[in-house]
Amino acid sequence: MAVTFFEKFKASVAQNNSLVCVGLDSDFEKIPECLKKGKGEEGGFSSRQRGEIILAFNQAIVDTTKDAVCAYKPNSAFYEALGGRGVEVLKQTVTYIREVAPDIPVIVDAKRADIGSTNEAYVEFVFSYLGADAVTIHPYLGREAVKPFLEQRDKGVFVLCRTSNPGAGEFQDLLVEAITCQGEDASSPRHSTGQASEELYKVIARQVAKEWNANGNCGLVVGATYPEELKVVRTIVGDMSILVPGIGAQGGDIEKTVKAGLDSKGRGIIVNSSRGIIFASGGEDFADKAKVEAIRLRDAINAFRSI
Amino acid sequence: MAVTFFEKFKASVAQNNSLVCVGLDSDFEKIPECLKKGKGEEGGFSSRQRGEIILAFNQAIVDTTKDAVCAYKPNSAFYEALGGRGVEVLKQTVTYIREVAPDIPVIVDAKRADIGSTNEAYVEFVFSYLGADAVTIHPYLGREAVKPFLEQRDKGVFVLCRTSNPGAGEFQDLLVEAITCQGEDASSPRHSTGQASEELYKVIARQVAKEWNANGNCGLVVGATYPEELKVVRTIVGDMSILVPGIGAQGGDIEKTVKAGLDSKGRGIIVNSSRGIIFASGGEDFADKAKVEAIRLRDAINAFRSI
Repeated sequence: MAVTFFEKFKASVAQNNSLVCVGLDSDFEKIPECLKKGKGEEGGFSSRQRGEIILAFNQAIVDTTKDAVCAYKPNSAFYEALGGRGVEVLKQTVTYIREVAPDIPVIVDAKRADIGSTNEAYVEFVFSYLGADAVTIHPYLGREAVKPFLEQRDKGVFVLCRTSNPGAGEFQDLLVEAITCQGEDASSPRHSTGQASEELYKVIARQVAKEWNANGNCGLVVGATYPEELKVVRTIVGDMSILVPGIGAQGGDIEKTVKAGLDSKGRGIIVNSSRGIIFASGGEDFADKAKVEAIRLRDAINAFRSI
Repeated sequence: MAVTFFEKFKASVAQNNSLVCVGLDSDFEKIPECLKKGKGEEGGFSSRQRGEIILAFNQAIVDTTKDAVCAYKPNSAFYEALGGRGVEVLKQTVTYIREVAPDIPVIVDAKRADIGSTNEAYVEFVFSYLGADAVTIHPYLGREAVKPFLEQRDKGVFVLCRTSNPGAGEFQDLLVEAITCQGEDASSPRHSTGQASEELYKVIARQVAKEWNANGNCGLVVGATYPEELKVVRTIVGDMSILVPGIGAQGGDIEKTVKAGLDSKGRGIIVNSSRGIIFASGGEDFADKAKVEAIRLRDAINAFRSI
């Protein structure tokens, strides 16, 4: 049997002694000018040129950071913004990571989810075409809908639980009446009135841990901007892995995040920083500065880990 | 100012006297063999050939159905499954519809949603690159996150509310405490204990109608497989447009759907059928049969409209 995402992840954490994930959110506009020199024509850059520049940027970042991280997480949106050529560059980026850093898993942050038969097409996109090790998905349609993802036993499936954005609470903090008696069909949990209410994100954390994770391939996404909620989710889900975006540009606190999020073995969180690492410098030293920032984040996290 | 999605939609409904949306879920495997003849090489079809076949299929379907429908809805997943070339074909499909049926709006069913800055990239993908008139999005991250979509005043934004899949109720039917007193910041609604509880999908319907729709460009998605819920949503949202998938292969009932979903003006629903129309025949008459099925659905719907 193939190595699963979580086995690969555990090994990369040990190998690089790192819980840092670098978010390859390679927005063309923010890529250093040095990579764009001599490429643009009078009317600007063609889609092919933009693709080449983004790929070169990603390759340089991967080259310098690969010994300091446990995962890479390109966000699909920044590639799709370039259309078909951008999607090819996303695939080329994943392929490049597999070549030069085969031990480092790639999480494609695509935030997908549709009804069942349609998810089969998304599974094809993320795992067969792109070649990713893991993906992020929305919970709203329920377990039955995302089965095609959950059935990928050797892949990782990270379900959005408590997102890092300022307005995350609009629905995620709604108070839900507690689910007590789970029926055989997990897709229609019974409601029990009179029980203590809890926030929707907690219900989702519990459902994913208890009902979605039969293949042991699920994780959750909880933003570093909400350390209290991260702590609660950790209590609910035991040692399930949690992808934690929101460090760096979004303002998440490292100490609070690590203390709230570590599992019983002193790991179990994948701490993602995107802009704070990849755009640390806008100059020719961008890749070296990315390495410096990745190491700085790795060490800052490790200072709060009791190994 | 440009014609908005909802103006274009209203006009297409009137022009073709139709509430039918054809779902261009053009799964390569299901495309009739007649389009594949003489194209495949020994090892099968190249990604370029697959793209050409899908595009030819879509063009034929659009040619025959364009006078019987009010909208087209390609689902992004089936194109992404082919990678970069597939995404180009999706763009070419939208472009083709704009050429031969410029009055028919195109809803790209992409079911996206990320944090705010990332959604700007998805807006670029869906509206600038693909050239769509409308998009579907997940609600889970809240209004603040999807602002880049909501700010597209001339585009349509359909928020998933009650989806058509069998397990939709897992979270969508959870009983949440009612939001009564909306604070100034709609992203953090106050909870009021002791109020009557209601299902999450109703809360989302109400929030979208009251708080997300400042630009009048929002709609909801409610599956035809849940006519009771559709009726409730219609009561909550007044005359807001509702995209209704689940007719045809998924088993939604036309009479129940129309009676539950129509707005006060006898329209306001966009009834989508995908497989039931585009794959009505696997033979050379596939495009003609698609037309027959589109007209049959149009007429079946209109029989229950009181105009």
